[in-house]
Amino acid sequence: MKSCTKYLYFNTENRIDFINITPEIERIVRESGIQEGIVLINAMHITASVFVNDAEEGLLEDFKKWLEKLAPPYTDSRYKHNLTGEDNAFSHLWRTIMGRETVIAITDGKLDLGPWEQIFYGEFDGQRKKRVLVKVIGE
Amino acid sequence: MKSCTKYLYFNTENRIDFINITPEIERIVRESGIQEGIVLINAMHITASVFVNDAEEGLLEDFKKWLEKLAPPYTDSRYKHNLTGEDNAFSHLWRTIMGRETVIAITDGKLDLGPWEQIFYGEFDGQRKKRVLVKVIGE
Amino acid sequence: MKSCTKYLYFNTENRIDFINITPEIERIVRESGIQEGIVLINAMHITASVFVNDAEEGLLEDFKKWLEKLAPPYTDSRYKHNLTGEDNAFSHLWRTIMGRETVIAITDGKLDLGPWEQIFYGEFDGQRKKRVLVKVIGE
Repeated sequence: MKSCTKYLYFNTENRIDFINITPEIERIVRESGIQEGIVLINAMHITASVFVNDAEEGLLEDFKKWLEKLAPPYTDSRYKHNLTGEDNAFSHLWRTIMGRETVIAITDGKLDLGPWEQIFYGEFDGQRKKRVLVKVIGE
Repeated sequence: MKSCTKYLYFNTENRIDFINITPEIERIVRESGIQEGIVLINAMHITASVFVNDAEEGLLEDFKKWLEKLAPPYTDSRYKHNLTGEDNAFSHLWRTIMGRETVIAITDGKLDLGPWEQIFYGEFDGQRKKRVLVKVIGE
Repeated sequence: MKSCTKYLYFNTENRIDFINITPEIERIVRESGIQEGIVLINAMHITASVFVNDAEEGLLEDFKKWLEKLAPPYTDSRYKHNLTGEDNAFSHLWRTIMGRETVIAITDGKLDLGPWEQIFYGEFDGQRKKRVLVKVIGE
């Protein structure tokens, strides 16, 4: 079994942001030389997400509006976590909805994605340095 | 390390549907000959889901009603994604709640599931051909 | 490829509970001797969850209150699943939000977690014996 570990770094301009990281994951998989296996991609911060969905601007706006409805971005003590001095309780909830990680198959040396599947980094408390882990295992 | 890649195809009669795929995953794992490892099962379309829960008809109805509450199935411009000519923005949100994929352990050549765990394909925009990927890796 | 399979057992005092299982997962990974690979950790019961988030008491209270809002813990026939004699339909929905499983990278023989990432068992219908599966694969 072979493995390859890489980290991606982000420091977004906006507090909330969505970044399509598919090209970078494709490059890491190609450079790993692994032909059959899986790649795990996960946020390393608990106010961020890695998820697979559509690269369509309208949908990304729908996600944001929907998350605001499911877990309103209150920065005050309506969330107990904010009593610690943080103001990002909602970011923890948003990432729970969107998911920490994705695992994607590698077949014939390539990401085995469906026609519209794109991999996104979802930032819910940005404007500071954050990390994503990419782990490829296989042969 | 050995690996095995299969695709399952669906074309559901209803737009929204839940299909228990546990027997097919069991068969693929058995035929792979892999004794210790994992199997990744994921929807390849971004309006569908693979998830693990209970094979109980009432619960599947509860899921549908609950998803309708969390993300109403508006087919108009209340979702921006629908401005593209699609009417399935809600399907993208439902699949986000239910999850794209599951990873299940293989122990002694069998799916290592709990007593009530069953694997489901969740279709949220069906009545057309869709695919699920099954990737087994191990030894 | 090497593998290692372990089960963790829980019987919580409260029906709803969150337990930080990071030290036990660290120990299992260390004892497996695997240096590079992944560990899959999943609830084996469909009314429980394994997820990664912050070990902060206020946030865990926020999660509970938020889940009560997203899927009220009705124990009656407002959920059809409860017509089977069960009263835990809401527990199935909560676990869907929080997630069945997590997959974590192992790098240099250690869990490759971000600075605040902690692994939790989320119990949503406890006070009885439940199991979590831990599967390590790698080399």
